[in-house]
Amino acid sequence: MTDLKALTLVCTLKPSPNDSSSDLLARDIQGELNSRGVAGEIVRVVDHDVRFGVTTDEGDGDEWPVIRAKVMAADILVLTVPIWLGQPSSVCKMVLERLDAELGETDDQGRKSTYGKVAIVGVVGNEDGAHHTVSACLQALNDVGFSLAANAGTYWVGEAMQAVNYDDHDETPEKTASATTMAASNAVHLARLLRATQYPAPT
Amino acid sequence: MTDLKALTLVCTLKPSPNDSSSDLLARDIQGELNSRGVAGEIVRVVDHDVRFGVTTDEGDGDEWPVIRAKVMAADILVLTVPIWLGQPSSVCKMVLERLDAELGETDDQGRKSTYGKVAIVGVVGNEDGAHHTVSACLQALNDVGFSLAANAGTYWVGEAMQAVNYDDHDETPEKTASATTMAASNAVHLARLLRATQYPAPT
Amino acid sequence: MTDLKALTLVCTLKPSPNDSSSDLLARDIQGELNSRGVAGEIVRVVDHDVRFGVTTDEGDGDEWPVIRAKVMAADILVLTVPIWLGQPSSVCKMVLERLDAELGETDDQGRKSTYGKVAIVGVVGNEDGAHHTVSACLQALNDVGFSLAANAGTYWVGEAMQAVNYDDHDETPEKTASATTMAASNAVHLARLLRATQYPAPT
Amino acid sequence: MTDLKALTLVCTLKPSPNDSSSDLLARDIQGELNSRGVAGEIVRVVDHDVRFGVTTDEGDGDEWPVIRAKVMAADILVLTVPIWLGQPSSVCKMVLERLDAELGETDDQGRKSTYGKVAIVGVVGNEDGAHHTVSACLQALNDVGFSLAANAGTYWVGEAMQAVNYDDHDETPEKTASATTMAASNAVHLARLLRATQYPAPT
Repeated sequence: MTDLKALTLVCTLKPSPNDSSSDLLARDIQGELNSRGVAGEIVRVVDHDVRFGVTTDEGDGDEWPVIRAKVMAADILVLTVPIWLGQPSSVCKMVLERLDAELGETDDQGRKSTYGKVAIVGVVGNEDGAHHTVSACLQALNDVGFSLAANAGTYWVGEAMQAVNYDDHDETPEKTASATTMAASNAVHLARLLRATQYPAPT
Repeated sequence: MTDLKALTLVCTLKPSPNDSSSDLLARDIQGELNSRGVAGEIVRVVDHDVRFGVTTDEGDGDEWPVIRAKVMAADILVLTVPIWLGQPSSVCKMVLERLDAELGETDDQGRKSTYGKVAIVGVVGNEDGAHHTVSACLQALNDVGFSLAANAGTYWVGEAMQAVNYDDHDETPEKTASATTMAASNAVHLARLLRATQYPAPT
Repeated sequence: MTDLKALTLVCTLKPSPNDSSSDLLARDIQGELNSRGVAGEIVRVVDHDVRFGVTTDEGDGDEWPVIRAKVMAADILVLTVPIWLGQPSSVCKMVLERLDAELGETDDQGRKSTYGKVAIVGVVGNEDGAHHTVSACLQALNDVGFSLAANAGTYWVGEAMQAVNYDDHDETPEKTASATTMAASNAVHLARLLRATQYPAPT
Repeated sequence: MTDLKALTLVCTLKPSPNDSSSDLLARDIQGELNSRGVAGEIVRVVDHDVRFGVTTDEGDGDEWPVIRAKVMAADILVLTVPIWLGQPSSVCKMVLERLDAELGETDDQGRKSTYGKVAIVGVVGNEDGAHHTVSACLQALNDVGFSLAANAGTYWVGEAMQAVNYDDHDETPEKTASATTMAASNAVHLARLLRATQYPAPT
């Protein structure tokens, strides 16, 4: 029960040590995973020299391979993503493009490297765009082989055209806290089931 | 200056006389158009027997042809659309599918029946989904030949997972009022330019 | 191993007995489910008087409650969806809106009526729009509580702006056949796991 | 008639001198603009050190300001965008995020720096995703103030799950050539109208 591992990729545009609502949501999700016996690591993608591309290694100092190794070692992959113009951040899209390479990484029975892994998507913005961002991420992650437990997304956004951030709150907004708990609880359940019983080869 | 006409299609799921935030936003937009010399009519689509389909007339009592005649007579088409599950309403999609028929309705120089017409999209929901709804509508309307002035969308949504509606407000939220004014002002300007000087045949 | 049940909702705009590529894909998916011991029923939504709305029963002759009972009895829900203007059909959106009601249908431990059920999305069009349609459906289905196995979507579309349909082919296009097999195989695996071990109450 | 200027930002993931279908489509669009008296420049974004961010200048060697100056000098902005996982490329999203800064760049009458400029979106991929990519770009560009002529998008994609590229063709696919002509013709018309008669201040 205690040996599941999670990896969270924070897809903010801002390098550390800048404050980031995506980073805060990442810690909130990891807290829920921890309390269910899932250890985890949080990586802010822009702190690393990840290259644009769709291969597992773009060479020449590309730091994606190090992150990819962590993805491969994890049972649960969490993306936390800021909204810009109502859409997922470019850094998130860069990560999804790198994961596109897994389409070609199959075992001798035709199963992708990601089979059996479960994904969670967390989204923050000062206004509107969460459902679309979740939608884009779920589709891309599922395309490349991740499984999705019920209610795999959690998010916070403010009222239309306002400027408050998730990390401006003294306490986690109640509805978001509840969605985060649900996403984590369900993902852990599903990851345990799939860890015990992997997908068969599709024939 | 006074002879432009607008048509607003309200894409709520609820027939009259139910209250509807989409209907309220329609009246707000029409108010801005009126003050710029543009007369207009507001039609709640579900009050009419519009059929699923992608032709100009599905026959057998289909009431789309009456609405289509109003679209053809208008210089500005406004859609007001409620959000469900972060996405445009089914009634909105039904309307866009009927407008798909215009792809085949061209003049002897190959210009679609909609060329020279300008569209505005207004979106309401109690939470999240406005940008995606605007996005889906702008793309579909532009595909079938409508032009889009700068800032063609206006919207209101509340904070994540809340239940307040646009029509629960005593006064129009300030940011939305400003976006509505901008959308109307720009659309009227563009419609006048295109009314005076239609697109040439593409050769 | 043999007692899983599937329900497919065909979201074509055209009533029976019109030909429908969505209907053909539905039968292709059900064939794959059958061969894995999953019985199933296929329902063409527009053959029934389903009303616009977001409740479990809109009253006054609404036929959704009959379909909803089938959804509740199924372990696997399949949606097959035609593309119009690059987007999911209005009938698909109407179905998703009706499923929105399940957000409020929870057991005494707070689990939605859909928890433990697995969804598959199949998409057809003569051109472009499959990924977006899958994306919109996966997000909405996951929001209302369905789980998604790896590679939950299958689709066929032709080259840009062409007019060939899925049901114009003498043989199923090879890539689509393979995607359909994979979607069915994975969904059955996941549905069996969740049937045996339901999600715990999120606490 | 001859003094309009265009700028095309090619949003491929691959730096020069790699072959790029997005680059080929950029040259096709520019050819159509040239033949209508519109001079233009084509910039491959990843050949420059553009930083992630949402300001006009991220400092520290950021090369966006040089590109931004070209955008500001252009009457028509063209984005050509490759599809990955059915979605716009990360480089495209990075460009849109940088353009987000224009929301705050207004003249003394409240009009954004982009008012009067017209956008075209060109999309290529070996399969599916064009409508969604056009949709995401049109919405974001319109949000930040660009106007959109009728049929502002052109695209080519192949059949589902195939691997042929736009630049594998000996001749431009006929439907795409026609859509490119239409997008260019309409954009030039609209840009001339707006150059002659700018939007009024919204009051």
